[in-house]
Amino acid sequence: MSANEVCISEVGPRDGLQNCTTIMSTADKVRWISALAKAGLSEIEVGSFVSPKLLPQMADTAEIVASSRELENLEVAVLVPNLKGAQLAIEVGADKITLPLSVSETHSVRNIRRTHEQVIEEARNIADLISSLPAEKRPHFEGSLSTAFGCTLEGMIPDRVILRCAEQLMEAGCDEVGLSDTTGYGDPRSIKRLIRSVRGVVGADAVKGVHLHNTRGLGLANALAALEEGITTFDSSLGGLGGCPTAPGASGNIVTEDLVFMFESMGIKTGISIDALFEARKILAEALPGEELYGFVPNAGLPLGFASDPVAEVTA
Amino acid sequence: MSANEVCISEVGPRDGLQNCTTIMSTADKVRWISALAKAGLSEIEVGSFVSPKLLPQMADTAEIVASSRELENLEVAVLVPNLKGAQLAIEVGADKITLPLSVSETHSVRNIRRTHEQVIEEARNIADLISSLPAEKRPHFEGSLSTAFGCTLEGMIPDRVILRCAEQLMEAGCDEVGLSDTTGYGDPRSIKRLIRSVRGVVGADAVKGVHLHNTRGLGLANALAALEEGITTFDSSLGGLGGCPTAPGASGNIVTEDLVFMFESMGIKTGISIDALFEARKILAEALPGEELYGFVPNAGLPLGFASDPVAEVTA
Repeated sequence: MSANEVCISEVGPRDGLQNCTTIMSTADKVRWISALAKAGLSEIEVGSFVSPKLLPQMADTAEIVASSRELENLEVAVLVPNLKGAQLAIEVGADKITLPLSVSETHSVRNIRRTHEQVIEEARNIADLISSLPAEKRPHFEGSLSTAFGCTLEGMIPDRVILRCAEQLMEAGCDEVGLSDTTGYGDPRSIKRLIRSVRGVVGADAVKGVHLHNTRGLGLANALAALEEGITTFDSSLGGLGGCPTAPGASGNIVTEDLVFMFESMGIKTGISIDALFEARKILAEALPGEELYGFVPNAGLPLGFASDPVAEVTA
Repeated sequence: MSANEVCISEVGPRDGLQNCTTIMSTADKVRWISALAKAGLSEIEVGSFVSPKLLPQMADTAEIVASSRELENLEVAVLVPNLKGAQLAIEVGADKITLPLSVSETHSVRNIRRTHEQVIEEARNIADLISSLPAEKRPHFEGSLSTAFGCTLEGMIPDRVILRCAEQLMEAGCDEVGLSDTTGYGDPRSIKRLIRSVRGVVGADAVKGVHLHNTRGLGLANALAALEEGITTFDSSLGGLGGCPTAPGASGNIVTEDLVFMFESMGIKTGISIDALFEARKILAEALPGEELYGFVPNAGLPLGFASDPVAEVTA
C-alpha cells in the first residue's frame, strides 16, 4: 500500500555540499535553504556537526541551524557523527538528528574509525542525552543504516549484520532507522526485500525513510519500489548536488526536482511547487558556478497542461 | 505478476539515429548492430522504410536488414509508415514490422499528414499483404500507439480515443499493439493504468511491449511499473541515443545499459552481457563522435561483486 502523501527530505545542504570542493558562503546557504523552504520542503538536512578540519564545508552548521529555525513549517535536520555533534545540535535547537551507522564495518572503521559496537555506544549516549531533556526540547533521533544495499569495500553485507545493526540502534534509543543506499548498489527488488526484512525485526513504524542515490540511474525506480512498500520519507538533493566521490562522473543523491515530479505526476502529494524548485535551482547554480547540477525535468520542462503547484494553491 | 525474463528491443539504429544530425555510414551501422547482437540482444529495430528525402539517416535500411538477417538469434525489426514501407520491409525479409499510429490526431496529421482513419486503412492494407504471404514468410506485425501518455500539441489524450485506436489496429489485423511514451509524459501510475485499460479492450496477449522515453528521468521507474503489470518487451537505445527533438538538452529513449542493469540486478534475465554492451557503446561513440551518449552505469561501473554475463555463461 503506497501513501497518497510523502515527505521529501532535502539533503543538498548537507550531503550535497559535503561532496563539493567549493565552500558555499553562509549567506548563500541561508538564501538557498530559504528558497527550498519557500518551495514547500518541510524537512531539510541543513548541515552536519563534524570537525571543520575534516569538512570545512560544514563549519557554519550552528549558524545555519539557527537561521533555518526562523523559517516556518520547517523541520531542521542535521547529521551528527557522535555525542559531541549531538550536543552541539541540541544546543542550537535542531528538530531532527541523524546518526549514520555503516553496516559495512570495514567502511565504518575506515570512514569514521569506529566499530559497530562503538557507534551503537554513541547512539546510546545520544539517546540518554535526549531523554534527559524536557519533552518539548527533544529532537527526533534517527539511526541511518549506510551502505545497506552494498559497499564498495565489502560488496553485499549479509542480512543478519544489517538486521542486528537495526535492532541495536532501536534498542539504543533511536526513534527510527533509515535505509541508505550510499553506493547506488540497490535495485527495486533489493530495496523492497530489505525494507520488509528490517521492518520484520524493528516494526513497520520504525522504518519510514530511505536515502537513495542515483549513481547507476536507478534512483527513481528504487524510490518507486520503496513507495510501494509504504515508505513515506525520501531523501533527495536539489540538482542531485554532490556527485559521487567514489565514482567520478556519476551522480549522487536522487534529484529533488525529478522525484517531486514523479510523485506529483502520480497524484501523490509532496506539498512542493516544482516551479519554485526551479527558482531554488537558479540560486544554487549561482552560488556554486563550477558544480554540475543533475536532473531531467529542469531541462525538459513540465508536460503540457501539467498543473501542480500546491504552494500557490495554498497561498492563492 | 512480473516476468522472470524479459526481451529488450534495441531501437538505437532506428529511433536513435533518426534523431541524430550526423548520418552513420552503412559499415558503422553493420559493425554496431553486430556488436549489439553479440551482446545478446535478441530483437533490434534496425531502421525504417521512410522516404530518404525526409530521413537520409535511414536511406540504407534495406541493406541493413539484409546484413542483420545474417546474425544469429536475432529478430530483425523495422518501422514502416505505410503500405509501401511494409512492401519494402517484406521484400528484404524483416522479421517484425511496426506501424506507428499517433493517438494524438493533431500530431498524426502534422507529422505524417494522415488522420487516424487513414492510418488504420494503411494497417488493414499491410495486414492483407502479410496474410497473402506463405506462413513462413509472414513478419510479426505490431501497431504502436505513439503519444499514448500525452502529446506536446494536445496534452493528455482521452482514454476513449486511445482505446478505439488500439481496438481498430487489432481489428485491422495487427498481431499486437505497443504503448509508446513518445513525449516522456508518462509516470508509473499512468503507465500501469493505461496498460490495464488497453488490455481490457484488446486482451492481455495483445499488449506485450512498451516504448518508453527518459525525457523527464522517469524512464526506468516507468519500466518497473510496466514490468509489474506483466509487460515483457521493453524498447531502449544504447547510450539513450537520439535525445529528444522536442526538448533540447533532454534525453530520449531509455538507456539500454541502465535498463539491462536494473533487470539483471533484480534477477530478471535479459540474456544480455553488460560488459559486451559497454563494448558496443565504444563502437557507437567512435561512429558518432559529436553525439552525446547518456547512461549512468557506463560512468559508475558495475557494483563490486556484480556478476551477470549470460553470454559468457552460455559460450563458456
